[in-house]
Amino acid sequence: MQMYDLIMKKRNGSRLSKDEIDFFVNGYTRGEIPDYQVSALMMAIFFRGMDKEETVDLTMAMAGSGEVLDLSNIPGIKCDKHSTGGVGDKTTLALIPMVVACGARVAKMSGRGLGHTGGTIDKLESFPGFSTSISDKHFMDQVNTIGVSVMGQTVDLAPADKKLYALRDVTATVDNMSLIASSIMSKKLASGADAIVLDVKCGSGAFMKTFDDAKALATAMVDIGKGAGRRTMAVISDMDQPLGRAVGNAIEVREAIDTLHGKGPDDFTKLCYELGSRMLLMSDVCTGLDEAKDKLSEAISSGKALDTLAAFVKAQGGDESYVYDPMKLKVADRVTEIKADRDGFVSHIECDEIGMVSLTLGGGRVTKESEIDLSVGLILDKKVGDQVAKGDTIARIYASDPEKEKAAIARFEGTYTYSDTKPGSRGIILGSVD
Amino acid sequence: MQMYDLIMKKRNGSRLSKDEIDFFVNGYTRGEIPDYQVSALMMAIFFRGMDKEETVDLTMAMAGSGEVLDLSNIPGIKCDKHSTGGVGDKTTLALIPMVVACGARVAKMSGRGLGHTGGTIDKLESFPGFSTSISDKHFMDQVNTIGVSVMGQTVDLAPADKKLYALRDVTATVDNMSLIASSIMSKKLASGADAIVLDVKCGSGAFMKTFDDAKALATAMVDIGKGAGRRTMAVISDMDQPLGRAVGNAIEVREAIDTLHGKGPDDFTKLCYELGSRMLLMSDVCTGLDEAKDKLSEAISSGKALDTLAAFVKAQGGDESYVYDPMKLKVADRVTEIKADRDGFVSHIECDEIGMVSLTLGGGRVTKESEIDLSVGLILDKKVGDQVAKGDTIARIYASDPEKEKAAIARFEGTYTYSDTKPGSRGIILGSVD
Repeated sequence: MQMYDLIMKKRNGSRLSKDEIDFFVNGYTRGEIPDYQVSALMMAIFFRGMDKEETVDLTMAMAGSGEVLDLSNIPGIKCDKHSTGGVGDKTTLALIPMVVACGARVAKMSGRGLGHTGGTIDKLESFPGFSTSISDKHFMDQVNTIGVSVMGQTVDLAPADKKLYALRDVTATVDNMSLIASSIMSKKLASGADAIVLDVKCGSGAFMKTFDDAKALATAMVDIGKGAGRRTMAVISDMDQPLGRAVGNAIEVREAIDTLHGKGPDDFTKLCYELGSRMLLMSDVCTGLDEAKDKLSEAISSGKALDTLAAFVKAQGGDESYVYDPMKLKVADRVTEIKADRDGFVSHIECDEIGMVSLTLGGGRVTKESEIDLSVGLILDKKVGDQVAKGDTIARIYASDPEKEKAAIARFEGTYTYSDTKPGSRGIILGSVD
Repeated sequence: MQMYDLIMKKRNGSRLSKDEIDFFVNGYTRGEIPDYQVSALMMAIFFRGMDKEETVDLTMAMAGSGEVLDLSNIPGIKCDKHSTGGVGDKTTLALIPMVVACGARVAKMSGRGLGHTGGTIDKLESFPGFSTSISDKHFMDQVNTIGVSVMGQTVDLAPADKKLYALRDVTATVDNMSLIASSIMSKKLASGADAIVLDVKCGSGAFMKTFDDAKALATAMVDIGKGAGRRTMAVISDMDQPLGRAVGNAIEVREAIDTLHGKGPDDFTKLCYELGSRMLLMSDVCTGLDEAKDKLSEAISSGKALDTLAAFVKAQGGDESYVYDPMKLKVADRVTEIKADRDGFVSHIECDEIGMVSLTLGGGRVTKESEIDLSVGLILDKKVGDQVAKGDTIARIYASDPEKEKAAIARFEGTYTYSDTKPGSRGIILGSVD
């Protein structure tokens, strides 16, 4: 088999067989096929696309290119959730305790990555002592005991995807649905979950700007998951403005805990119920969505969800007292209140720019080596549709460094747009793909 | 300027500016832009194409990436001819003496390359003593004195093209008209000729199989030449069967000399008149095609064309007595006559396979290091349209090695197809682009 022939075949509009896809993924991972042939193939795929079967084959080949987690020592259905990313997305922090309290099992391997805020692991590290550097045995035992564990990514999951993504990133071949979907799903498949609920973000603050694109990506990922024999579904949710009110790390943990008390922001709470009920269905804990939502509601009102978070934090070395007294979580003490400069309604919030404010404060990573300041962030007191009077506080910025604070305030400028009449809202849940 | 942005721009269907094209050609030549980005761009160009202006810009950038020959010490119009390649193409050997005898000036830099037979330089080396390793001064002086000189390629003409072609060759991005045309023309432009006549081959034995493709390539090359300020035109000629009857090296030189005696094969003679008259027009030697053809005819019948070849061979150290007594040219003495196995008409000759017979005999180069056996080759006694009786000699194979002879005879098998009725013919000249 020759890489040249594969490029030619795809270029001319033919489909690649499973053997051909395995050949190029394995050859590239081993360094036997050069970058310049793979980038030419990626560009041909950009123009010609891949069908459902090719996309599944590519994903399976990448998932199999490194270690594949074996969770068979944990009985029952292991469920995972993946978000395509946005601003203020602290969903995992509230969602997992909710579903685990209802009987679902979550065994999650998580990386750190780059972004406006830290990832789930960084946020969990707001609890003093919390560690994701745990042994495989600890990981498995903990899921069997309390239903949930999150382990830092120690093994090289889907190294082919890592190499391929880095190449696509510099050759303008990222934005193809099949390639995006296979990149995300290869890591999910290698992580070993039996059931996967995807949260595909859609809007100005998300990778997918339009509903059609978000739906196409959701469909591609669900097709892959099912093609690989995993229970898979996707929820399409709004990311035209940040999710909830908190953007940062410790500050987001506080908001997640508020939500476990039933006092979270509307949009965020709704999303947790939507994703949570899907996870319970997929885990065979419930048989209907209404039943699942009732169960989730009961887990919150009974305090069981909060207790589950506490047990989870404790099991991984964290101080669970912070769960019950979240004001102990360290949040920066330099607070700047941003005021509305006119009367009216908030009609738009520049989602990406709000993310940049968090990054400017030091709350996220620009490079893998960046140190995150878990205490900084911002609270959006007003969101789209809220009425404001001139001088009302629309947001609060929490900074630990005066220079960064100044830069963050400047960056915040212009992120809010107002209108004279109340803008319409499409809601947080935009659709789903089963 | 970022290479990434150029790839993205072309991928999305926009045109690249002259500055952008210069940036990537120069950056790639200097090794500052990696192969994998250039191959992605080439694939994007394959799908999106380049317009006339972009193609000219690319060609000029590649032509200017290395040394550009300065022929200004030679007064008058320097004319060059370029063929896109085929089997039995000894055109330069007869054509150049014909046009130079009429007053045209040809200063040609030539490489050796790979192929079924050697290139023009190899063929000229059939004359004992002939050398293309001459000084720049010798080269210029000789054109001024006798009107023609051929120098071996000593300098790095269009190194960007060389590097780019090698990359395209392994990434399935060769067959795009703009890229093919710019590759050929960049070397022609760097060679310094004022006027360029292109012979675009068309048919089963050529790179361009269909007339439409040949015409598109011819048009693209003519557009480039004119865009670069050179007089340029193209003739589209048939390559559905080998040109003339001789395929090899010394054996082709003999046929070229026959042609200078007015005794060449019909198709080959016609092509020389067509290309020759175009060269005379472009060189301002004649003002009309009929006048030019008459002049070429006169150069042959007077013996002036033959004398020009002799003077040319002598000026570059060769034994000109061979020009007047071509039987002295060494041709291999193991001759195998191939016979027709039925009565009928030759309806088709597998052009590429005839080339492979020559290569099998040792008449061409597989790698740059291959030694060519100038004495081997074959003569096609029967060509398409000729009537044959079972047992007639259709071809003669000239070999110097029994093993290779055996392999060549086996390879010849099946190259001829017969029909009961005389097949139609489209003639040698298929069209032209001015």
